[in-house]
Amino acid sequence: MEPRINIITLGAKDLDRAIRYYRDGLGWPLSSISAGDFAIFKINTGTALAIYPRHLLTKDACVEDLGGYGGVTLAQNVLTREEVDRALSQAVSAGGRLLKAAGETEWGGYSGYFADPDGHPWEVAYNPFFELLQGRLALPD
Amino acid sequence: MEPRINIITLGAKDLDRAIRYYRDGLGWPLSSISAGDFAIFKINTGTALAIYPRHLLTKDACVEDLGGYGGVTLAQNVLTREEVDRALSQAVSAGGRLLKAAGETEWGGYSGYFADPDGHPWEVAYNPFFELLQGRLALPD
Repeated sequence: MEPRINIITLGAKDLDRAIRYYRDGLGWPLSSISAGDFAIFKINTGTALAIYPRHLLTKDACVEDLGGYGGVTLAQNVLTREEVDRALSQAVSAGGRLLKAAGETEWGGYSGYFADPDGHPWEVAYNPFFELLQGRLALPD
Repeated sequence: MEPRINIITLGAKDLDRAIRYYRDGLGWPLSSISAGDFAIFKINTGTALAIYPRHLLTKDACVEDLGGYGGVTLAQNVLTREEVDRALSQAVSAGGRLLKAAGETEWGGYSGYFADPDGHPWEVAYNPFFELLQGRLALPD
């Protein structure tokens, strides 16, 4: 099985609200291949972001849903502390919720967390030890 | 805020077990920048996969954890039905759990789901409507 992740799908309670958040609030490009209940965004880092009603995603995956968070976070790395502040500010203005104000981290960086309207947590981080090449993490072997 | 997702972090109850699963079971490349409780894999599609103890991830994100699934799935798209079968078979042999046996889908493809040892659901899908270029989804604007 190749090391590939093509799509991250986030379950949404209100699909239209979630689409508005990512498309209009964050300004992310919705692909025209989106159809019906399935919305998919083109993401510069390669792995696409999809939005699908949470109850249908749960049913499709044959899992049980206790509600809430499930031990998964998404992160965007940026090049400066100021970009962390700006991104968190935009994410909150667009209707997200600040989970953790940006601040210095114990690992020597600077980061904060927000939740999208469905509670999915995102970290925005400046990590001086991670190289970013055209917005992509360049990890050593 | 640019449309970028640099890292997907999966919370693990048993970090070593999760690392063994992805590194040895699925054969995915662990980056040497992994340190302490933080393991990160190089993923061909660009967005990296990290593993971190779930209770620490929860604390870091300042969220509440009810346990279980949280409305997020990851998907790998492949080029044929046979690749779906092979990937699911490997994922289960390596210690994952079959959530949904592979089969024809209502959207005209073929897919199945497995859970990793921590219960995180993955879909493996053949979708004839999605173009894959060198393993990456080529979505229309």
